[in-house]
Amino acid sequence: MTAVREGSGVLTESELRQVDAQWRAANYLSAGQIYLMDNPLLREPLTRDHIKPRLLGHWGTSPGLNFVYAHLNRAIVRRGTRALFVTGPGHGGPALLAHTWLEGSYSEAWPEVTRDVDGMRELFRQFSFPGGVPSHVAPEVPGSIHEGGELGYSLAHAYGAALDNPGLVVACVVGDGEAETGPLATSWHANKFVNPETDGAVLPILHLNGYKIANPTVLSRIAPAELDLLLRGYGYAPRYVEGDDPVAMHRAMAEVLDDVLGDLERIGTSQVRPMWPMIVLRSPKGWTGPATVDGLPVEGTWRSHQVPLPAVRDNPDHLRELESWLRSYRPEELFDAAGAPTADVTALIPRDTTRMGSSPHANGGMILRPLDLPDVGDYAARVPAPGTTTAEPTRVLGCYLREVFGRNAEQANFRLFGPDETASNRLDAVYQVTDKSWHAELLPEDEYLGPRGRVMEVLSEHLCQGWLEGYLLSGRHGLFSCYEAFVHIVDSMLNQHVKWLKVHRRIPWRRPVASLTYLLTSHVWRQDHNGFSHQDPGFVDHVANKSAEVVRTYFPPDTNTLLHVMDDCLRSRDSVNVVVAGKNETPNWLDDEQAALHCARGAGIWEWAGNEDGHEPDVVLACAGDAPTLEVLAAVTLLREHLPEVTVRVVNVVDLMRLQPAAEHPHGMTDAEFDALFTTDRPVLFAYHGYPWLIHRLAYRRANHHNLHVRGYIEKGTTTTPFDMLVLNNMDRFQLVIDVIDRVPGLARTAGQVRQRMVDARLRHHRWIREHGEDLPEVRDWSWPG
Amino acid sequence: MTAVREGSGVLTESELRQVDAQWRAANYLSAGQIYLMDNPLLREPLTRDHIKPRLLGHWGTSPGLNFVYAHLNRAIVRRGTRALFVTGPGHGGPALLAHTWLEGSYSEAWPEVTRDVDGMRELFRQFSFPGGVPSHVAPEVPGSIHEGGELGYSLAHAYGAALDNPGLVVACVVGDGEAETGPLATSWHANKFVNPETDGAVLPILHLNGYKIANPTVLSRIAPAELDLLLRGYGYAPRYVEGDDPVAMHRAMAEVLDDVLGDLERIGTSQVRPMWPMIVLRSPKGWTGPATVDGLPVEGTWRSHQVPLPAVRDNPDHLRELESWLRSYRPEELFDAAGAPTADVTALIPRDTTRMGSSPHANGGMILRPLDLPDVGDYAARVPAPGTTTAEPTRVLGCYLREVFGRNAEQANFRLFGPDETASNRLDAVYQVTDKSWHAELLPEDEYLGPRGRVMEVLSEHLCQGWLEGYLLSGRHGLFSCYEAFVHIVDSMLNQHVKWLKVHRRIPWRRPVASLTYLLTSHVWRQDHNGFSHQDPGFVDHVANKSAEVVRTYFPPDTNTLLHVMDDCLRSRDSVNVVVAGKNETPNWLDDEQAALHCARGAGIWEWAGNEDGHEPDVVLACAGDAPTLEVLAAVTLLREHLPEVTVRVVNVVDLMRLQPAAEHPHGMTDAEFDALFTTDRPVLFAYHGYPWLIHRLAYRRANHHNLHVRGYIEKGTTTTPFDMLVLNNMDRFQLVIDVIDRVPGLARTAGQVRQRMVDARLRHHRWIREHGEDLPEVRDWSWPG
Repeated sequence: MTAVREGSGVLTESELRQVDAQWRAANYLSAGQIYLMDNPLLREPLTRDHIKPRLLGHWGTSPGLNFVYAHLNRAIVRRGTRALFVTGPGHGGPALLAHTWLEGSYSEAWPEVTRDVDGMRELFRQFSFPGGVPSHVAPEVPGSIHEGGELGYSLAHAYGAALDNPGLVVACVVGDGEAETGPLATSWHANKFVNPETDGAVLPILHLNGYKIANPTVLSRIAPAELDLLLRGYGYAPRYVEGDDPVAMHRAMAEVLDDVLGDLERIGTSQVRPMWPMIVLRSPKGWTGPATVDGLPVEGTWRSHQVPLPAVRDNPDHLRELESWLRSYRPEELFDAAGAPTADVTALIPRDTTRMGSSPHANGGMILRPLDLPDVGDYAARVPAPGTTTAEPTRVLGCYLREVFGRNAEQANFRLFGPDETASNRLDAVYQVTDKSWHAELLPEDEYLGPRGRVMEVLSEHLCQGWLEGYLLSGRHGLFSCYEAFVHIVDSMLNQHVKWLKVHRRIPWRRPVASLTYLLTSHVWRQDHNGFSHQDPGFVDHVANKSAEVVRTYFPPDTNTLLHVMDDCLRSRDSVNVVVAGKNETPNWLDDEQAALHCARGAGIWEWAGNEDGHEPDVVLACAGDAPTLEVLAAVTLLREHLPEVTVRVVNVVDLMRLQPAAEHPHGMTDAEFDALFTTDRPVLFAYHGYPWLIHRLAYRRANHHNLHVRGYIEKGTTTTPFDMLVLNNMDRFQLVIDVIDRVPGLARTAGQVRQRMVDARLRHHRWIREHGEDLPEVRDWSWPG
Repeated sequence: MTAVREGSGVLTESELRQVDAQWRAANYLSAGQIYLMDNPLLREPLTRDHIKPRLLGHWGTSPGLNFVYAHLNRAIVRRGTRALFVTGPGHGGPALLAHTWLEGSYSEAWPEVTRDVDGMRELFRQFSFPGGVPSHVAPEVPGSIHEGGELGYSLAHAYGAALDNPGLVVACVVGDGEAETGPLATSWHANKFVNPETDGAVLPILHLNGYKIANPTVLSRIAPAELDLLLRGYGYAPRYVEGDDPVAMHRAMAEVLDDVLGDLERIGTSQVRPMWPMIVLRSPKGWTGPATVDGLPVEGTWRSHQVPLPAVRDNPDHLRELESWLRSYRPEELFDAAGAPTADVTALIPRDTTRMGSSPHANGGMILRPLDLPDVGDYAARVPAPGTTTAEPTRVLGCYLREVFGRNAEQANFRLFGPDETASNRLDAVYQVTDKSWHAELLPEDEYLGPRGRVMEVLSEHLCQGWLEGYLLSGRHGLFSCYEAFVHIVDSMLNQHVKWLKVHRRIPWRRPVASLTYLLTSHVWRQDHNGFSHQDPGFVDHVANKSAEVVRTYFPPDTNTLLHVMDDCLRSRDSVNVVVAGKNETPNWLDDEQAALHCARGAGIWEWAGNEDGHEPDVVLACAGDAPTLEVLAAVTLLREHLPEVTVRVVNVVDLMRLQPAAEHPHGMTDAEFDALFTTDRPVLFAYHGYPWLIHRLAYRRANHHNLHVRGYIEKGTTTTPFDMLVLNNMDRFQLVIDVIDRVPGLARTAGQVRQRMVDARLRHHRWIREHGEDLPEVRDWSWPG
């Protein structure tokens, strides 16, 4: 591979020398991180003692990343480009650490890693070392908004960062391994959702180095013409830089990059969707590393993926080969006596915040402007008394969000994301003030579509999540509304984002960013026509496994609590908030003021619903979620009618993490608080929105845990009526009354007749729906008696 | 839209009449399912009472699906094609129900739904009705291997079904909504992994009906030329059938389909990767339905997605429009007096197992041949006494799998799937007998790649999972080996597969299929160089929420237990098995015979490790997982040395579901069994591989639960040494000894010095690794004293 398809005339001789010096310096530093504990500048002959005991890291992708970074640096210096760098092949941590150290961003972030020989030693030593830094591009790396451990999300992150950042070029290196993932494969189409006039540009750089861990990559092994069709079909105009001769490659890359950046500047004023430029860089994996090791080819193959010379501590030949490899970069030309990079190395490195490692877009908290939020009271449902009015919670939220869009239109820092479900989730009031983003063909019959739309809808939860993460980490705000069941599609992305935030919170120079908030609706209890495949309330369980300092989960039982929870979430920082709320018409339980107080407490006794009146209750009926709350109140009605002698306390939980011990979650209750709500000795019947085990898990350390009986979704579902779903999962009002009778000491003996009436009601329901196809009138028309 | 790009001469006039009659009949039946409770043949004027109380279902995609199905039927009859149908736009349940009823497959599967007027009434009534069938293509639908509720996996399922089925044409309708998902976007590339000679063919039919729930689709709104580039870039030769005039469309479709099937027959002998044919069908959403409703366009827009005339029960105009719509299909020509389809309708419908609804490939258990499995003993590690030998568990498993490949080479019904990790997961012994499947370019330096390879490697967990599901449901066997952390990528696919199996198990005509088995390795405790982003043991938690009759989870502690667990999994049916096992060298605890017994029991006391010797133990040290097991035994060594007076029982759990009550999981223990292992009153220290809460959740109903203390992964991770990971998460041997001292009554007082020694050891470790970058020699070189 020596041919260079394009270019030869842009780079001056001095620039060539400078960009090559920068590249060699970064390559030297990348290899050094993998191998060296000491003797960082090779000022003495390399010995076994200079080598790390455990050789960990990924060399293969690093030289290509270094090449791209160096050339972008030149473009920033020469053209004044504003650029952000997203590293898809995230295992190339050494490359980004090397470049940010060279440009000084690293030492500003981590003052103990100085830009001199001592700092270089520390840079090397800390890499993949206990207590050090990971081998991936991670939050510790200045200039990054993208964790490189799990692959597939770079391009979505890049597009998310580009939104509402006109003039910004987000250079996104896409690895050809990563390109095989589903999320990446669909992310190419994100170019139909950006507006050249009001958004920044993404410059994808597909790095074809040919190999993954142990296999060739698909895109490197289809005919070049076929790849070209694919990329054009995705809506890009690819330019190719291919080869392995450094000089020729430098010339080609400089010319192509200049062309492409020029194209982007012109596109910035375009009204029609352009074919966006992109670069295909075909260079050998492990470029400039050992060509062969032990007789097998390494450079240009998958064998260079991790540590090309694995046995340097034990094999003197390997040690010699390592030394000659490191010396091939001529470190003595690249670093001065103090160990700082020489003038040739730094000549084409930008300064201040134009350095990609110091971009404020990569430390979004630095430029975050708080949202201007409406007064929740302006949207609150009128509730003269509990249960006397009804509303569709998400529809009211849609009106509130409409004003969020309105108030923040000028600062253009809020977007709503969803997989083709915004209207289905009844948030469509927002279309009164903004469109859905759309930069593909428009037809006359289209509604609410346009290039300036701020609602991002595409049938890919992955792309929605990736966009939003990129948008948040670059200092903006957003909300992801999703069907509850299908948010599991992004379980793994959620993992990575929570991990990012957990680390981010501990990094002193990373400033707080807006939280990632999910609105999960069209939930398990109301999948009337979609049935079993659309029923899964387990995302909350997944989230509850994650770092407690980051995650919060909310189950607002009605409209006004939903508004207050959302207001709180949109103000929060550095968290992941999961809000589960229904879209169907449901009674309003709390007025604005009560809702505010209840949400602030997170959980509380609803005195108006119970009848304890200063006495100890016989039973606590607890609920979390809109459907369980309604059902508990319906059960209370039945108890009032049939068993008025039973003293009932109703507890509603909005903030589920309140159930955890205070030591385990920042929202957790003390034991005293918990006992004050749930007693230490009375039976607690808990009707919960999701899988019942989660409640046990959160509460198992509490004194009264042995008295806790939880009803929830037990994976019994089908296409059926709302009430039948409750019956199938034993959470209907009749069953709850039966549970009370069975659990409250003494009742089983005295309330046998009532119990039988409840059993009969369940049977009557069963026969009724199979004949009529809809719920019993008595449950459909039920209303809270007040 | 009236232009027809291709075709006019293939279809005879009688065929045109017949295929159109079949299509009209299916459209009539599709609409009927959504609306009618009674009067199925409209033999009396339509009244409100004939209409279902709740109108649920999806009309929009159905006419297009019916069109494709009818034309495939014609091709099967005329050409003898063997075809399987995969319905990507899964909401088109009505279409598949209609066609399988017309062809008789449905009545054979569900005898109460006869092919006459009574059966038609039942077909209509049961649809989206409580206790009836879902609106998606679901397991209840004969001929289906693909649930249509969650979108994105149709093409992966189709390719999975095509593998090792030469001569089979898997026609896969891909919705243009679904096409926006990540998994679908990358599934197009699956054509680089099929071998025309030994596999079947997938015929993708991209159905561009233009709209999702509420939005246009990306692929319908890019220029046709751009779409063509994209599909060619994916490696397909697209043919186009576009328009809305039924006659012209029938002619075009017949001609294109004939061409394409002819191409596939020729390709079947191809040695080089062909450009695979595919069809792009551009037809109006809701085709032949109401053109407008209440003055707004419906046919050809997103408004036809669900129920085009929503108010037929209350709006007499809508009711009249519905009647005229239904009558537009001229049901009197399509169904005879008894309600059976007329000769014109059935003329081009195939018979017997050539009917797509009766394909044995869609009811894989019918053609499942059990694997010929080797004797585990042939591969078992030699274990003269516990802990005296070591092995790499997955490497030994690789040798066993090599023989599985060998023994089943002729019946060609076993494949191994993995995202570029087979070698990394140390299963590479299999390459001695089979390659990795690869039908793209080959280079001389490539190893173990070829078109006949039976190992499926692509960097997409989605594609791996989708392939495997399709392969299993069509009656074959497989294993998915995956990094533990990243298997969360397919959480949502797992959900859908478990839901499928749960329903499948209750359908009398669905025969048992091979289980889906995951080998999760490269696990949380040994991510030495990848660190925090690669650490997540929570897939098991996710799985544990799913239907207990389907899911099993195993934590074999060493090599021989891994072999026995895997042997059991490969024999099992209709389940999802999750096996978590390490790849790093680890002591062998049990010999072949002991391992067989231990795995059969699922959990048991390791007498050789404890010292209770007939006495009640002071403490139970329980463990699940290889790293926790080793650590518990190391703690036992310390206890023997420092606190020999403490009586210890060691319990190892292989089958985690054994911890659940017998009433909740088929593998669950009775309380008596549980108490016999864990006592009712002694402290239990449980060292668990994953998140500790899961153990509490599984065991919270047991008598001794209040004495249960679980150590596990608490989301503390970074790039560090194996032992440091244990220390960070408080599961190291020193901490376990401290826990014993703190929990066993009386010890806190007498064992203060030992406790301090353990605290000191943790501190010494901390200082050591930060200096040396590797673990303390005493923990690295530890061995079980026997």
